[in-house]
Amino acid sequence: MGSKFHFDKELDFSKLDGLVPAVIQHADSGDVLMVAFMNAEAWRRTLETGRVTLFRRSLGRVWVKGEDDGQYVDAIEILVDCDNDTVIIKARPTGNLCGHGYPGCFIRQAART
Amino acid sequence: MGSKFHFDKELDFSKLDGLVPAVIQHADSGDVLMVAFMNAEAWRRTLETGRVTLFRRSLGRVWVKGEDDGQYVDAIEILVDCDNDTVIIKARPTGNLCGHGYPGCFIRQAART
Repeated sequence: MGSKFHFDKELDFSKLDGLVPAVIQHADSGDVLMVAFMNAEAWRRTLETGRVTLFRRSLGRVWVKGEDDGQYVDAIEILVDCDNDTVIIKARPTGNLCGHGYPGCFIRQAART
Repeated sequence: MGSKFHFDKELDFSKLDGLVPAVIQHADSGDVLMVAFMNAEAWRRTLETGRVTLFRRSLGRVWVKGEDDGQYVDAIEILVDCDNDTVIIKARPTGNLCGHGYPGCFIRQAART
């Protein structure tokens, strides 16, 4: 079985001790749903499977988003920045992405004073 | 002079050695323009001035976005995630945010195979 995505450059995992930030963004609304991290293996598996795969720091291991609750997140588009040290995954999650029961994690707003 | 924004919780700077990721997103298009980092001082000054202030790792210091080229970025809305360890700044930058001469940094796309 072939890979779902191909990216022709190496990402730079050196700046954050082996990790890069991964922004998960809703493909339609543009809402940023979550910011997480990938190590080299999580990145490789995300490209290979097309399914968001992260390095979960609290567990100390690669973790397929949804492996606990079946709410897998399939990438529609994958973008990389000019320094090759950050990725954006655009997706259309079917459930709530945030573990606290919200569609996304950015539920708080700083007040204008 | 008062602060421009107020956020009533402490951010958690412990997970990335004193930094949190800061996503800069276009307030109208929703495009993610840049992902950078803030330390506690950069966050405090962003709230105080309403102007995106980062910790630039390559310089090892707090850096006001635009201090080199005058293209300051004023926050329109500031969001924080449920873990208080990531922020989104929504803004309408007047110039190119990416140092390489693009509106944003996410100029590369992984190919579908």
